[in-house]
Amino acid sequence: MLIVMDQKATPEQVENVVAAIEARGYTARPIPGGERVAIGILNNEGPVDGSLFLGLRGVKDAIPVTRPYKLANREFKPEDTVVCVGDARIGEGSLTIIAGPCAIESEHQSLTIAKHVKKAGGQLFRGGAFKPRTSPYSFQGLGEEGLKILKKVREETGLPVVTEVMDTENFDIVEAYADIVQIGTRNMQNFSLLKRAGLSSRPILLKRGMAATIDEWLMAAEYILEGGNSQVILCERGVRTFVNHSRNTLDLSAVPVIRKESHLPIIIDPSHAAGKRDQVIPLSRAAVAVEAHGLMVEVHHAPEEALSDGAQSLYPEQFKDLCVQARSVYDVLHGR
Amino acid sequence: MLIVMDQKATPEQVENVVAAIEARGYTARPIPGGERVAIGILNNEGPVDGSLFLGLRGVKDAIPVTRPYKLANREFKPEDTVVCVGDARIGEGSLTIIAGPCAIESEHQSLTIAKHVKKAGGQLFRGGAFKPRTSPYSFQGLGEEGLKILKKVREETGLPVVTEVMDTENFDIVEAYADIVQIGTRNMQNFSLLKRAGLSSRPILLKRGMAATIDEWLMAAEYILEGGNSQVILCERGVRTFVNHSRNTLDLSAVPVIRKESHLPIIIDPSHAAGKRDQVIPLSRAAVAVEAHGLMVEVHHAPEEALSDGAQSLYPEQFKDLCVQARSVYDVLHGR
Amino acid sequence: MLIVMDQKATPEQVENVVAAIEARGYTARPIPGGERVAIGILNNEGPVDGSLFLGLRGVKDAIPVTRPYKLANREFKPEDTVVCVGDARIGEGSLTIIAGPCAIESEHQSLTIAKHVKKAGGQLFRGGAFKPRTSPYSFQGLGEEGLKILKKVREETGLPVVTEVMDTENFDIVEAYADIVQIGTRNMQNFSLLKRAGLSSRPILLKRGMAATIDEWLMAAEYILEGGNSQVILCERGVRTFVNHSRNTLDLSAVPVIRKESHLPIIIDPSHAAGKRDQVIPLSRAAVAVEAHGLMVEVHHAPEEALSDGAQSLYPEQFKDLCVQARSVYDVLHGR
Amino acid sequence: MLIVMDQKATPEQVENVVAAIEARGYTARPIPGGERVAIGILNNEGPVDGSLFLGLRGVKDAIPVTRPYKLANREFKPEDTVVCVGDARIGEGSLTIIAGPCAIESEHQSLTIAKHVKKAGGQLFRGGAFKPRTSPYSFQGLGEEGLKILKKVREETGLPVVTEVMDTENFDIVEAYADIVQIGTRNMQNFSLLKRAGLSSRPILLKRGMAATIDEWLMAAEYILEGGNSQVILCERGVRTFVNHSRNTLDLSAVPVIRKESHLPIIIDPSHAAGKRDQVIPLSRAAVAVEAHGLMVEVHHAPEEALSDGAQSLYPEQFKDLCVQARSVYDVLHGR
Repeated sequence: MLIVMDQKATPEQVENVVAAIEARGYTARPIPGGERVAIGILNNEGPVDGSLFLGLRGVKDAIPVTRPYKLANREFKPEDTVVCVGDARIGEGSLTIIAGPCAIESEHQSLTIAKHVKKAGGQLFRGGAFKPRTSPYSFQGLGEEGLKILKKVREETGLPVVTEVMDTENFDIVEAYADIVQIGTRNMQNFSLLKRAGLSSRPILLKRGMAATIDEWLMAAEYILEGGNSQVILCERGVRTFVNHSRNTLDLSAVPVIRKESHLPIIIDPSHAAGKRDQVIPLSRAAVAVEAHGLMVEVHHAPEEALSDGAQSLYPEQFKDLCVQARSVYDVLHGR
Repeated sequence: MLIVMDQKATPEQVENVVAAIEARGYTARPIPGGERVAIGILNNEGPVDGSLFLGLRGVKDAIPVTRPYKLANREFKPEDTVVCVGDARIGEGSLTIIAGPCAIESEHQSLTIAKHVKKAGGQLFRGGAFKPRTSPYSFQGLGEEGLKILKKVREETGLPVVTEVMDTENFDIVEAYADIVQIGTRNMQNFSLLKRAGLSSRPILLKRGMAATIDEWLMAAEYILEGGNSQVILCERGVRTFVNHSRNTLDLSAVPVIRKESHLPIIIDPSHAAGKRDQVIPLSRAAVAVEAHGLMVEVHHAPEEALSDGAQSLYPEQFKDLCVQARSVYDVLHGR
Repeated sequence: MLIVMDQKATPEQVENVVAAIEARGYTARPIPGGERVAIGILNNEGPVDGSLFLGLRGVKDAIPVTRPYKLANREFKPEDTVVCVGDARIGEGSLTIIAGPCAIESEHQSLTIAKHVKKAGGQLFRGGAFKPRTSPYSFQGLGEEGLKILKKVREETGLPVVTEVMDTENFDIVEAYADIVQIGTRNMQNFSLLKRAGLSSRPILLKRGMAATIDEWLMAAEYILEGGNSQVILCERGVRTFVNHSRNTLDLSAVPVIRKESHLPIIIDPSHAAGKRDQVIPLSRAAVAVEAHGLMVEVHHAPEEALSDGAQSLYPEQFKDLCVQARSVYDVLHGR
Repeated sequence: MLIVMDQKATPEQVENVVAAIEARGYTARPIPGGERVAIGILNNEGPVDGSLFLGLRGVKDAIPVTRPYKLANREFKPEDTVVCVGDARIGEGSLTIIAGPCAIESEHQSLTIAKHVKKAGGQLFRGGAFKPRTSPYSFQGLGEEGLKILKKVREETGLPVVTEVMDTENFDIVEAYADIVQIGTRNMQNFSLLKRAGLSSRPILLKRGMAATIDEWLMAAEYILEGGNSQVILCERGVRTFVNHSRNTLDLSAVPVIRKESHLPIIIDPSHAAGKRDQVIPLSRAAVAVEAHGLMVEVHHAPEEALSDGAQSLYPEQFKDLCVQARSVYDVLHGR
């Protein structure tokens, strides 16, 4: 943290800030410049809260210098985290493809889609039993019945399953059925849920919030890591911008940044970013090319009858194409 | 909902879409144009989910025509909702001022600040016992002990208290102590929490999500209203944009829009929008001038020692000025 | 400028960065910390371009510490700049109201509206002769004929006139007719135009770019000031965000920030921010309450027949109300 | 265009809107619904300006149904536009790579870099002679001297050259030296410049504005096409969002959207999107994978000495890697 003083700050004001810094147990190092004084804060363990000093008389700005997260930080743990589920080793040298419908609608629907997913080469099945919906009048998911269908899917196809948890009440039951527990975009900063996830024995797939910076996202992961669960998979799914030709704007530069700053694996959900079927395959190829560790896409055998998000769900035939194209991009980049 | 067909859509594709609309129980009305066909969807009760049709062959776009919310809609309930707590009648012809520290830190701190608030003319006291913090290493609030301090504040000053609930587990206890229960920005689309709030006997102060549209915000309110709780107060606190001179960008145009589209009261939190003390008073005056029903601001008797958000907390003297200025703007606009 | 080194940067890399800083003529001051080294850059006149160092081996970040603008900076010129045109003293203790149609359509139209503006208490008349239009098929303005009508308006009503210049070719002619020359949002970073404006003897009204930060906006002003023209008026007119209930999001916090960081006057254009008539009066009141130095609004005697932006133009009666309300807010804040 | 009436709009108000539509020469088709009336506007040639009707009494909303651009629209010209310059056929089945320094600094610098570009397989050379710089104190480019260096580069290497034009004054001279004339981000809605570009015999590379929607971008292209110049290449270079880990947010979904809605070729500039060297190669691969027609990247043989944008310029060795990786992704997608 660097405290920048006003050009006209008095020596007394500088002294006051130094005292305030030292009162918090840090070391203050004033740096006199030509025009103004700045004060470095040293010897802090963990991040310093800039707002503690921003309001002091004579302070113009408080500029963070180091990242606020620790356990999620590659500087503290240089080697990649690898999450192993079924055959998939997410975060290692391979491409993981997760696919399935937005919502579990019935056993027939789920098994039909899961078979398509497996045949095309998908490694995990996704499907929502508890659905966060903008409208209270929209289909809210089958709940526990949906979880039971997921279990059936795993038994019949051998595919591990990913499903979302929306609250701490249902965490136990979701955890009992799911191989990977998903925390959705709207819950990225539901800190009670993150703390519960930190106690889970399941890997957590943590979607990026719609308006979250990388720092905020990694701090959300930090809650889970700090609780004792080291198995966190990050999932970029588009952020909210002024752009209106896709539902959200897929931020692919997050991939090289996350891979540099953190050791956690990162996958891409192009379906929720696009919101429209015909952008999903191109964005999937791009996600592989930018070196995401995996993809999570929506597939439905009859999208026009889907109870939610039909417009962005691929037909099985399209999903097959996606797998072929994604794997060929992956292979050429990895010299296979 | 208006379905716009591709210019080259075939008559069969148009018929298919008509059939799909009618299969959902709506009336389809094709509108042939010079260049292309559009299809109106009529006789829907409640909102239509455009994505149901967006993926059909030949469909170019699905354009919503009516608002998706119903109970929150002024077209369905023209008269203003007024929430009465203590002396305040929020949503009626008066200006409600809510103030207090970001976090409850101690009985001494809270009582000291509350007395300043009361003396300056604030009508409600705010303070967080459960604090949503970006970092797991930041102060997380005093929890139930904080709620007990709030009770003491009410007893000693007569000010009703507003405090945040972060999860359903603690809803009962928060509800037991609070006069108004706040749902924070990061939980605006925590649908489990919204459903629980719909069962509460307390008024709910619902902050706008950092990246929420008005429609999404009113749909969040709709969850609460639909659950049976008609006492919802909306609170605009800034949205996330590229702008970096304030923590968030206060969207004051939300006030005339909400007042037109909904019957719910709307207040402004300038402290979290600004993130810096010296923008709070000007933005408060602006909030009153744009005809918000109230203000919620952070005050601290010793901001440099505050455990959170010190930089945006007003000194008691500044809060007194704010009250005088805000009320004088209010009075001149209402001919007093 | 503060250069932050990687945690693992070698002493050689630090020395290289120090050498690179000194090669540019600055002073480098390394600040060893617990975890990593930072290097302050001192004795720079004018801003330092961080990208010069960002690419060096071992450098993690380059953090600007001081503002990049100089002539526009209040630290260099503490007293307010006041622009005097006709009766108006923009930037001093008074509220300036500028009004008129989006586009000059005819002498009759302009004179009719100008008389309404004058009668209601507007001090300057605005109207576009050269119109920047998103579509090449939209009305592009009357050009020089429009300028002649503006001259007539000034002669008949005594109101000074504000009109936009779109390119350097037409600068001479616009300057010959206008009392204040406007540079529009889309041209805020048209640097050739800014340089020409720096040579003008007319005050320049510089609108904020749709996605401009305060620093970029003041740097655009700096181009004009540096060219020798000290008469710059800033105009906030909304920025582009995800918000869709207004055409742009009016960023009123820009007013206290500009008033603090710069000595230049700042006015608000609520019409282009809102894009809808019914938000204009509330936002105008808010602009006065936040202490903008003036307002610029669109008025039309027959908005439904306007050739552009009819939806956001006030009726003369509404403009009269706006003036009364805005001035009453102004007066109460200034103790009149 | 669809005009949506208020629920309580009177029959007279509906009639008024119908009359207003027909007064403009369009056909009005009222669509009575269960709750409210909507009115379709038919038989319009070219786009309808919604604001013409938005302000009428009883009108709630005006919703555009068709795209506002015509000449840029694939519905009007289904076959791809291909721009041929030197060996490159931009927009056809091949990948075009354009590279060079941000600014032309000297003959030595430019020739050195151009030889690296050619050797690595780049097909065009880029370099700025006129530089749009945020700060008036930054290096503004060599001007005509820079253009002469570009000519030399073409003569010595055979590479066609791309360079930016900043204003109409210098258009003739830039056109005389350049093979492709670039219009930069900040000038995307400099309509005077676009009109001049419409008269040029050179292909125009039109960068997307920092906050431009696809519709606005294609309308800017429409200005050029409408002026008579059919050779327009679109270039996505990132848009401004809240995201702060890259200079801008690269919007790769623009590629499938542009390819669907327009016949114009689209290339990607990852350097300006990223602003940091280490994101450029991953984003370049992603751009190829999403099927952009080409790449434009910054390369410098000594980035640490570059006069602008050094931090985002690749080293020659990195550029070589980029070409290999980009072409291998391209080839695998096109079955080579």
